[in-house]
Amino acid sequence: MKYEIFKNIERSSRDEKYSQLLSEYGVATVSEAQNKTGIMREYIHPLQQNVSIAGRAITVECTAADNLMIHAAFELCQKGDILVVSTPEHTVNGYFGELMANSAIQRGIAGLVIDGGVRDIKAIRELGFPVWAKYVNVLGTTKKNPGIINKTMKCGGTYITGGDFIVCDDDGVVVVESQMVEKVIENSQKRVEKEVVTRDRIKSGELSINFYNLRPVLSEIGVEYKDGRVV
Amino acid sequence: MKYEIFKNIERSSRDEKYSQLLSEYGVATVSEAQNKTGIMREYIHPLQQNVSIAGRAITVECTAADNLMIHAAFELCQKGDILVVSTPEHTVNGYFGELMANSAIQRGIAGLVIDGGVRDIKAIRELGFPVWAKYVNVLGTTKKNPGIINKTMKCGGTYITGGDFIVCDDDGVVVVESQMVEKVIENSQKRVEKEVVTRDRIKSGELSINFYNLRPVLSEIGVEYKDGRVV
Amino acid sequence: MKYEIFKNIERSSRDEKYSQLLSEYGVATVSEAQNKTGIMREYIHPLQQNVSIAGRAITVECTAADNLMIHAAFELCQKGDILVVSTPEHTVNGYFGELMANSAIQRGIAGLVIDGGVRDIKAIRELGFPVWAKYVNVLGTTKKNPGIINKTMKCGGTYITGGDFIVCDDDGVVVVESQMVEKVIENSQKRVEKEVVTRDRIKSGELSINFYNLRPVLSEIGVEYKDGRVV
Amino acid sequence: MKYEIFKNIERSSRDEKYSQLLSEYGVATVSEAQNKTGIMREYIHPLQQNVSIAGRAITVECTAADNLMIHAAFELCQKGDILVVSTPEHTVNGYFGELMANSAIQRGIAGLVIDGGVRDIKAIRELGFPVWAKYVNVLGTTKKNPGIINKTMKCGGTYITGGDFIVCDDDGVVVVESQMVEKVIENSQKRVEKEVVTRDRIKSGELSINFYNLRPVLSEIGVEYKDGRVV
Amino acid sequence: MKYEIFKNIERSSRDEKYSQLLSEYGVATVSEAQNKTGIMREYIHPLQQNVSIAGRAITVECTAADNLMIHAAFELCQKGDILVVSTPEHTVNGYFGELMANSAIQRGIAGLVIDGGVRDIKAIRELGFPVWAKYVNVLGTTKKNPGIINKTMKCGGTYITGGDFIVCDDDGVVVVESQMVEKVIENSQKRVEKEVVTRDRIKSGELSINFYNLRPVLSEIGVEYKDGRVV
Amino acid sequence: MKYEIFKNIERSSRDEKYSQLLSEYGVATVSEAQNKTGIMREYIHPLQQNVSIAGRAITVECTAADNLMIHAAFELCQKGDILVVSTPEHTVNGYFGELMANSAIQRGIAGLVIDGGVRDIKAIRELGFPVWAKYVNVLGTTKKNPGIINKTMKCGGTYITGGDFIVCDDDGVVVVESQMVEKVIENSQKRVEKEVVTRDRIKSGELSINFYNLRPVLSEIGVEYKDGRVV
Repeated sequence: MKYEIFKNIERSSRDEKYSQLLSEYGVATVSEAQNKTGIMREYIHPLQQNVSIAGRAITVECTAADNLMIHAAFELCQKGDILVVSTPEHTVNGYFGELMANSAIQRGIAGLVIDGGVRDIKAIRELGFPVWAKYVNVLGTTKKNPGIINKTMKCGGTYITGGDFIVCDDDGVVVVESQMVEKVIENSQKRVEKEVVTRDRIKSGELSINFYNLRPVLSEIGVEYKDGRVV
Repeated sequence: MKYEIFKNIERSSRDEKYSQLLSEYGVATVSEAQNKTGIMREYIHPLQQNVSIAGRAITVECTAADNLMIHAAFELCQKGDILVVSTPEHTVNGYFGELMANSAIQRGIAGLVIDGGVRDIKAIRELGFPVWAKYVNVLGTTKKNPGIINKTMKCGGTYITGGDFIVCDDDGVVVVESQMVEKVIENSQKRVEKEVVTRDRIKSGELSINFYNLRPVLSEIGVEYKDGRVV
Repeated sequence: MKYEIFKNIERSSRDEKYSQLLSEYGVATVSEAQNKTGIMREYIHPLQQNVSIAGRAITVECTAADNLMIHAAFELCQKGDILVVSTPEHTVNGYFGELMANSAIQRGIAGLVIDGGVRDIKAIRELGFPVWAKYVNVLGTTKKNPGIINKTMKCGGTYITGGDFIVCDDDGVVVVESQMVEKVIENSQKRVEKEVVTRDRIKSGELSINFYNLRPVLSEIGVEYKDGRVV
Repeated sequence: MKYEIFKNIERSSRDEKYSQLLSEYGVATVSEAQNKTGIMREYIHPLQQNVSIAGRAITVECTAADNLMIHAAFELCQKGDILVVSTPEHTVNGYFGELMANSAIQRGIAGLVIDGGVRDIKAIRELGFPVWAKYVNVLGTTKKNPGIINKTMKCGGTYITGGDFIVCDDDGVVVVESQMVEKVIENSQKRVEKEVVTRDRIKSGELSINFYNLRPVLSEIGVEYKDGRVV
Repeated sequence: MKYEIFKNIERSSRDEKYSQLLSEYGVATVSEAQNKTGIMREYIHPLQQNVSIAGRAITVECTAADNLMIHAAFELCQKGDILVVSTPEHTVNGYFGELMANSAIQRGIAGLVIDGGVRDIKAIRELGFPVWAKYVNVLGTTKKNPGIINKTMKCGGTYITGGDFIVCDDDGVVVVESQMVEKVIENSQKRVEKEVVTRDRIKSGELSINFYNLRPVLSEIGVEYKDGRVV
Repeated sequence: MKYEIFKNIERSSRDEKYSQLLSEYGVATVSEAQNKTGIMREYIHPLQQNVSIAGRAITVECTAADNLMIHAAFELCQKGDILVVSTPEHTVNGYFGELMANSAIQRGIAGLVIDGGVRDIKAIRELGFPVWAKYVNVLGTTKKNPGIINKTMKCGGTYITGGDFIVCDDDGVVVVESQMVEKVIENSQKRVEKEVVTRDRIKSGELSINFYNLRPVLSEIGVEYKDGRVV
């Protein structure tokens, strides 16, 4: 890989609106609205509860046990951006700590997604800076090895490019490609409207097996009902 | 495997009483009362704190990445039942979400145990529906593949049949076979009574090595005391 | 291994002071102050939040699925000590539960670090006894097999000897060798003082890439800036 | 679970013929012939090369670190049967060794499938007794704990009942339910015949993308061809 | 990700020469010659012994449980190319089997590297087609989902683009970027020449601690020699 | 840990005899002769077949991604010694390669046991130098970080001190403490003699369930025989 830093990502005057909508729909709705694509693996989990954010991604690929490139990324971030960091999967370092969280807050960064580890977790929680990470570990890093910023990278099992949108909540993380954001918001809105109806009928006692008309499916694939009790 | 749904499980007029007692004893006591059998693996963990439940299990075996059978299971559930779901161990889907939690609450289901994943976890927490799961992941499923309900299946490393009792708390999950429930409750009660005494003596300063008479054991198996300081 | 219990560990009249300082510096600072050595693996995690402790370690090596040696360890503990337990890595038992937590509190033990599992976790939380563990599992143990107390053992991927200091907080666990404690405290103090300055400058908007003078590093290792937007 | 030994399994006068055919078709063909069901996980691998066997399964569920039930299983085996053993997934014992291999050969058992470990592997190889296992480990077992023989159990991620057929070769292991064996053989034969044609055309240079008519598929799902070179 | 197939990769009239040299140097030498970069993870291992190959990579990114894109890749391959396939890390399918091996041989493909699984392994071995894979599993795939060919992807923990060179032997797999190949060959040659001398001196009895002048290093980093015997 | 090299280990004039006997008994017999203690985990496996060795251990603890201490160990080795190396469990480097194998052979070292990785595996196999390792990986190391030689360390899940005997064959690795070697040889001999009888009776058709008198055990622990066929 060439070690390159792309200074600019795609931006639009509607970014704030997009981000607000995506964070309101949440990860589950958005992932369904784009056919279950762009979902990060379950091991990237929130370190706090009840926080939902969305924003443009500044993507950072680190070398093993080194966080130099995260330092380099801060000045490329604008208010509302989300820092997305990938680290070699066998390393166990804490690549991001309290000082970086202060830097991130200072820059207006909305949160951190890291396929790797963080430390100073108590201070980060107290600062209210939201993090989705693979693990917490105190083992520090160096600041001397190269990496890549904003080029397409793999993170949490999915590809992401600087400028893509990223949505994070209690369920995890999903990537929305920049050029797809309007379509995904539109699909999300439709899905939300449909779910209102479903939820109402389910809450009023309708069985989902009836609501979704699943009895013919069960019958067709050969699932048999037995009246007797299992022995 | 034949794809079958057994509509009925064993039930008794004393089920509510049994469930209340088992949830009060809790997983640790109950598992000891049946000689450490029926314990699910540690990776099935509670997604909330300080909740203890017990009830008859409705057991559901799903095919990879498909939750059709959970939909089919709801109408077989009665108030106080616990939904117990097994999924293929290499899949990473969220098999159960908010709409299902609403269905479950509507049916009076006491909680969910799943050797697999759930999603919409914020909504599920807000609904107060207790869940013991392997992971949280937003990756959705289809609703079209067959499975099995209420026949003996393996879940969390232990076997369970529809109608068995299941006890869940902060420590995890344990299965009590239906025909053993009275014996297990009796043993649990004895154990609880004995522990009151033990706890009192421990709290008043007695060493467990004396209380359990372990010094002769140490001596017999050849453990040597050294007066000096380790170097 | 010879099965031996060393009754005594190194102690000093300044232990309380040392422990207080180490717990205030915290795991991240202390681990950096000793060049990233002595750090336990990330899988040993706190079962509570916002607790920071430090103290002399009483080290216990258990045989598979047996907790006899923990019982034997209590009487060797003094006020402020921390119990550090290693168990065979493939076992899934809960080696420590509520009664032991009561014993530990009775003895003035400050907390438990276990490369293995605990149970009765609700009661332990209610007792306010802090624990760093690998997992929670209800599967009990026997009390009949030998082990070792206070000799050098491996725990969480690092070596520790009875009498070493151990520091635990939300970030994990780090071991400070007994003979190094004064040097590590001195280094920690220096580090804390330096970080005050760094934090202030970061918070006032200085970029870490400038503060740490990282631009020449990026240039020297061949990282290139691209003005255009990534495509 | 009730600890039971079912002495008899389903047998037929055509078992030898069935086994011969299934072993000739091999695991890949048979698994496709039953719609990819009954396949054991990839971690159950052959300890030898170029051996293909099939036969009725005698199924054995062992308790942790105990092989008593394998001893009990030998006398239920007939010539050509395959011993299929399940052990608790967290244990690391060698449940089967040289003496058992001698017993197995003496009984005419065709091979061993074990979701667990074996030992004395050099002797077993020299005896020519074929084994599919999860690992090799020398750690011995006891012979004192109960288990289950020939009832439905889970092994390698799939369910199997005593009397089901099992097919094993370099690709792994697949279970064929007893009542499905004729249908599966029929489907396998059809598949083999079809593959002869495919193989001939592929070998004579036809592209599989043409043979399977996949170009319209690529087009329909939106895969685009780019003439230029990737940059 | 856009689903795209880049039909062409960089090629040069010297490709055969480059490939021959790289395969002779082998993975260890080549990886050192480019500063330990481009190395695939250890879990990608050879399914045969004593085979060393190198060639231009045709890279294929598959969707979960689907091998359509491998079929699409064959016609883009030229004699001496190596097929490099990435699959989602949680899937356990066999994405490549005997028919594909026949296609590959027919096209003159030198071998397969797959971060995923293969099947029909006996036939593939008999055909003499070399494979480096993560696992062997018989579970088949569909042929209906999109993917990407020849764009930069992550495979075995490292990035690779169609047209990069790939070197594979008993030690594993390393990627050499297309534009670096001449420099890497030059460095490899130097390294090989230097190792001849080293090997001769080591074989004639010189200690590596002397040859590499490591005694001053040991002394400087504070390693102490103890004359007595360890106790 | 203090970084120390103990130059000398316990040796005896009977070492050659001990080693010969232990390698003949093999890992399975020796591990049983010392009550299943000292057994390394199953993931340390032989990289060749049909090799059995035993000898005094020279133990080496390496720092992450550094093999300096192995270089330092060679001059402490005598003919017949076995090099036993422990490396941090999360690293994926190849710590030992062809040049080191040449050094080892030159010194008369009988083999290598490494809880970590090796490379140049083809050359090592051709040299006939036997290795038991966790993985093969080409990723090189530095030669600049400290470690420990011949002090007690943990390797493959068991403790070992320089001078202990180590036995390695196709079944794995077992450690025999220096002071126990005569007793273990004596027990091994008894065990071998007893197994001759057992093997003969098993081979002549006696069932192990009878030979070991296991029918009363089955009965006592409540295992029930069912005459009917399982359904």
